[in-house]
Amino acid sequence: MYVKDIGEFGFIRRISRGCLVRPKHVLKGIGDDAAAFVPSPGDVTLVTTDLLVERVHFLRDSTSGFNLGYKALAANLSDIAAMGGTAQEAFVSIAIPEDCPLDFLEDLYEGMKKLGAEFAVNLLGGDTTKSNLDLIINVAVVGSVPKDEILYRHTAQPEDAIFSTGFLGDSRAGLHLILNNIPVDSKEFMVLKDAHIFPKPYLREGRFLARKRYAHAAIDVSDGLSSDLGHILEESNVGARLYAEKIPVSQNLKKFCDRFEFDPVDFALAGGEDYTLLCTIPTDKAEEAVRDYVREFNQPLYPIGEINDSGRLELVYPDGKMKQIKPTGWDHFKSV
Amino acid sequence: MYVKDIGEFGFIRRISRGCLVRPKHVLKGIGDDAAAFVPSPGDVTLVTTDLLVERVHFLRDSTSGFNLGYKALAANLSDIAAMGGTAQEAFVSIAIPEDCPLDFLEDLYEGMKKLGAEFAVNLLGGDTTKSNLDLIINVAVVGSVPKDEILYRHTAQPEDAIFSTGFLGDSRAGLHLILNNIPVDSKEFMVLKDAHIFPKPYLREGRFLARKRYAHAAIDVSDGLSSDLGHILEESNVGARLYAEKIPVSQNLKKFCDRFEFDPVDFALAGGEDYTLLCTIPTDKAEEAVRDYVREFNQPLYPIGEINDSGRLELVYPDGKMKQIKPTGWDHFKSV
Repeated sequence: MYVKDIGEFGFIRRISRGCLVRPKHVLKGIGDDAAAFVPSPGDVTLVTTDLLVERVHFLRDSTSGFNLGYKALAANLSDIAAMGGTAQEAFVSIAIPEDCPLDFLEDLYEGMKKLGAEFAVNLLGGDTTKSNLDLIINVAVVGSVPKDEILYRHTAQPEDAIFSTGFLGDSRAGLHLILNNIPVDSKEFMVLKDAHIFPKPYLREGRFLARKRYAHAAIDVSDGLSSDLGHILEESNVGARLYAEKIPVSQNLKKFCDRFEFDPVDFALAGGEDYTLLCTIPTDKAEEAVRDYVREFNQPLYPIGEINDSGRLELVYPDGKMKQIKPTGWDHFKSV
Repeated sequence: MYVKDIGEFGFIRRISRGCLVRPKHVLKGIGDDAAAFVPSPGDVTLVTTDLLVERVHFLRDSTSGFNLGYKALAANLSDIAAMGGTAQEAFVSIAIPEDCPLDFLEDLYEGMKKLGAEFAVNLLGGDTTKSNLDLIINVAVVGSVPKDEILYRHTAQPEDAIFSTGFLGDSRAGLHLILNNIPVDSKEFMVLKDAHIFPKPYLREGRFLARKRYAHAAIDVSDGLSSDLGHILEESNVGARLYAEKIPVSQNLKKFCDRFEFDPVDFALAGGEDYTLLCTIPTDKAEEAVRDYVREFNQPLYPIGEINDSGRLELVYPDGKMKQIKPTGWDHFKSV
């Protein structure tokens, strides 16, 4: 069955079920000219948006609708997390090619609703239209944060310690397994694949770091450690030194790299889509922050280096050798 | 020149100029994980979003970038107008095919900035990525409105008078001229073409009708009078009677219809993209509303019929004949 069999409004009726998981402040969801909701009193509003195009960001044949929907929302929630905010409302625009089955689409909205429910994010509106060839999804997420707790990219300071909230490189390894049709024949490979398909938005962790005023600056790792830390360095006009042996690399990634003869640190630096948070914390708060974070989440906050005023991004190896890394961001328009 | 010649970040730097026209409440625009701004205190937040796909919604060869950008934003502003709100922040996601010249894209953002400046709407963020074939634009607009002034679709009541804020059918006639390459050889045709290319968002008018508590319900005419009034009838669970001779048809449209032997009322009913507001006003307020509106805007508020409890949409001709119109919305997935 396809959307044309039930019509645009039939489709909207179907996907509208189960969209409101936090109805209290919602005056109007799907079904008017605009959605209307009461913003959190006294807070700043955050808005982020991400456009996904078939054959650029995903292949319809190698993903389920559920996984695609989940990840499309996860990437946006991660952006709100990186600002220290709470995610609240999601808006999904979708352009649907004629050959895209209704099952796939309903599954896509299920993936978003599942993740939305986990973080109390309503699916509050959007736009539904036709596409000629590629499936296109734009997700916009609105969130909020107290004004004096926002985590920017431009506020890192020399001597801040740099932390990651989770492992780096796993997602890239999972993508490698998927793209090369490598059999996922172990628990380890399964975890890597899941890291790529179901990235965790660090919303609670971002909120914690912001609320406790531990972090000076933050960003989420969507394009890779070097690219994303590069954005902080550029915006804050600082440099940084990273320690290769401190970069949090999972046992799963190590096993993967052993088998295929890759360098796990390369995967961490250039991987992308880990969606962990990178944050910088002033030295005098770092110890307390780490202790407090572990107590709260029962997970470590991994120190990976420090901010300095060099203007460069340097990687130090255990033997003392140093490599300069060019802190450029991932560019969608350059050939890779 | 193309985006790949200057890179994604070079492109973002270029289009970022002139985006902030109302900087006062903005904490962060383009250039972080999310935009951050202070919402209007005490107000409800409105969000609307529209996805435009090349070869579905526009042909790149038959529009300028400026006109495309202008109209993409105008459609969203019109949605905020139909809720009685003030538009504030716009977020533009764009997926760019390799063959789309930089000039066209800069022109597109110019069109949005021009219209944004006219209504004090910031261009506050978005997403920039690659497309394989079609140019894709998603615009999301955030606005605000006092809670007890929101204009919904579901709040029309029997005996309300129905009004339009402007002429209907002009935009459809303009599209006909464009699609059929008809020479725009008169002032009249020029006005029709402009009605299609540069639709006016009735933001001030919507706000006025909401602030003065004149209107019970409102919607903007994006799909045509019958479709959009149909949404009000369906959501409000009411019917309506329209009077053919009262439907505001411009002299320009009459001249066009004379020449090509069309019925102007058909153009008004099924036209679409006029982006006037339809609103319903209780009878006891209607006279005052019309007088007050004319005084404020020096433009008429056109009465076109009234809401009843018939559940049907009927059109009455001057000779007393009546025709029932099926109040269905435009469906992107049905063949026309």
